[in-house]
Amino acid sequence: MASAPLSPGSTVGILGGGQLGRMLSVAAGRLGLKTHIFNDAPEAPAFDVAAEKTVGAFDDPDAIARFAASVDVVTCEFENVPARTLEIASDACPVHPPAKSFEVAQDRLVEKTFMDSLGIAVAPYAAVGSLADLNIALTRIPPSALLKTRRFGYDGKGQMAIHTLCEAQSAWEAIGEAPAILEGMVDFEREVSVIAVRAQSGDIRFYDVVENVHASGILDASRVPTPLSESLECEAKKIARDIAEALGHVGVLAVEMFQTRGNEPGLAVNEIAPRVHNSGHWTIDACLVSQFENHIRAICGWPLGDVARHSDAVMTNLIGEDVNAWQKFATEPGTAVHLYGKSAPRPGRKMGHVTRIRPKT
Amino acid sequence: MASAPLSPGSTVGILGGGQLGRMLSVAAGRLGLKTHIFNDAPEAPAFDVAAEKTVGAFDDPDAIARFAASVDVVTCEFENVPARTLEIASDACPVHPPAKSFEVAQDRLVEKTFMDSLGIAVAPYAAVGSLADLNIALTRIPPSALLKTRRFGYDGKGQMAIHTLCEAQSAWEAIGEAPAILEGMVDFEREVSVIAVRAQSGDIRFYDVVENVHASGILDASRVPTPLSESLECEAKKIARDIAEALGHVGVLAVEMFQTRGNEPGLAVNEIAPRVHNSGHWTIDACLVSQFENHIRAICGWPLGDVARHSDAVMTNLIGEDVNAWQKFATEPGTAVHLYGKSAPRPGRKMGHVTRIRPKT
Repeated sequence: MASAPLSPGSTVGILGGGQLGRMLSVAAGRLGLKTHIFNDAPEAPAFDVAAEKTVGAFDDPDAIARFAASVDVVTCEFENVPARTLEIASDACPVHPPAKSFEVAQDRLVEKTFMDSLGIAVAPYAAVGSLADLNIALTRIPPSALLKTRRFGYDGKGQMAIHTLCEAQSAWEAIGEAPAILEGMVDFEREVSVIAVRAQSGDIRFYDVVENVHASGILDASRVPTPLSESLECEAKKIARDIAEALGHVGVLAVEMFQTRGNEPGLAVNEIAPRVHNSGHWTIDACLVSQFENHIRAICGWPLGDVARHSDAVMTNLIGEDVNAWQKFATEPGTAVHLYGKSAPRPGRKMGHVTRIRPKT
Repeated sequence: MASAPLSPGSTVGILGGGQLGRMLSVAAGRLGLKTHIFNDAPEAPAFDVAAEKTVGAFDDPDAIARFAASVDVVTCEFENVPARTLEIASDACPVHPPAKSFEVAQDRLVEKTFMDSLGIAVAPYAAVGSLADLNIALTRIPPSALLKTRRFGYDGKGQMAIHTLCEAQSAWEAIGEAPAILEGMVDFEREVSVIAVRAQSGDIRFYDVVENVHASGILDASRVPTPLSESLECEAKKIARDIAEALGHVGVLAVEMFQTRGNEPGLAVNEIAPRVHNSGHWTIDACLVSQFENHIRAICGWPLGDVARHSDAVMTNLIGEDVNAWQKFATEPGTAVHLYGKSAPRPGRKMGHVTRIRPKT
């Protein structure tokens, strides 16, 4: 259901004050919108570029209600927002993306069954609620396989590889004996993702498919264009469209996929994120309208912006101490430096990224 | 004199909270820097995207001293900053651009004699301190000619055209009998400008020369590339270099020039601005590193960023009620919409701009 677009000057409420909130806030600013950032810690990258800030717990009903009452729309920079929080916010103002997108993205089992229901390929999986379940699952999905908690996993956290049957118990303990899934390893050529954006009107657009390279479970680099055939690129966008439409999604939706190897190469969905995504950061520098601006446009009921790419691009994350080389990156031709304003470059912490562009091939 | 670059996380103080301050603040945010905006009115576009804000008079020595003591560098979004204000700020922290750039840009007579001293062509001019001066000047520079106040003129304000000798007195009264210059009309093909940026190290870079079209004394559109010959484009950049170096300028410097007509086409400088400039807004969308980011880099002692242009561009200002068509612009392919967050679209007020890009010709 499309409502009237929010006027310039309106305030966008963002749950979460990390770098994604920061880049969303900057994009909103370009459109003449204000942002109000809600974060659970007093130091937040997004606070530096926002008109209003609130520090509070994401599950504090009163704080959330006050926050939602002070803004014109609420959105989120992370997927693990409690369902109750979204509900409370919805009582005061529109919330985008919809609750269903969070429900599906928050739970790996729900996500897999949702993909099944749409006929979208995923890695073989089994629900695991106990060590006994795990041992049974391992007969159907033999090692090497991945044991992943159903909830709260990201950047390689909450998951353990099981290479031999005798590792089952230690893996189960390592993930905290939490509800989980066992996932078969996918024999893949590459990981790609589609950054889609869907408007309140149902209009949906896709940035060019991007190839992702991980290191230690964290995204290292994203590269566009990919070597994907045109038909696979179309197929990837069709999958993203089917998911976004089935969710009734509004805003940016990121869909990570594997290009599988084997007799019949195809695509299998790894996971989705109902938000702007690290593998879409290149759109700031290689497209006229970035994923951040298009997310803001979508949730505000604005027409979507142009997703065409004017340049080829490689985005590289600056993780931990990587950021100390910022002066070197700042001198490189064709290189855009993005720093997130975080003070301590702890290992594994995303401190910034660089995007290198060159003319389209 | 280059000092060590300011670290990410440092705070940039900006005098002035209009749209230029807003776009500077967003650019600083991308580099992991904070901004503190000082403005003389409590409603300021730049406040929406800044970490800190101060409302105070630009000539309040105590407020300026406190502000400068709270930041790591001070810069300005407008040229008419009182010299004493820059001096007070300099006692507490580095100030860029230097006082000399403001001195020259604030006074049309000083500006013209400065260009003369560098051998740079300008329109014929004469100093006018009285009606008697004006009448004498008109014998040397016959009508049509322009009477312009030496100080505080912008967007066509503080100037009157004199078409016949009998208009001298009314023009003198219309500009408030303020110290002025009489300027001969230049027979020009087009107005162009050069956006230069000079680092603390002396490194200097130039964006591609842009052609400007005015309407009612206010910039209407800027277009790049221009039809200028390569040699004139080089000459334009050489002029900007000579000026920036003679000023010891640090930061962005905009130089407006006329491409003159006649037997020997050439360039005559119209005026300079020691700051980011409306005719450089296209750099946000058609270059990897915008004029705003390069200004921030320069004043912070960072290496300059890439000024290469990846696309052709036309920037059009949204003046007054123009902004009401924002929804139409937001649907146009190849169009970036920039709104400044100002509430009332008064006539003549710059409310936003749109940049239309297409592949380089």
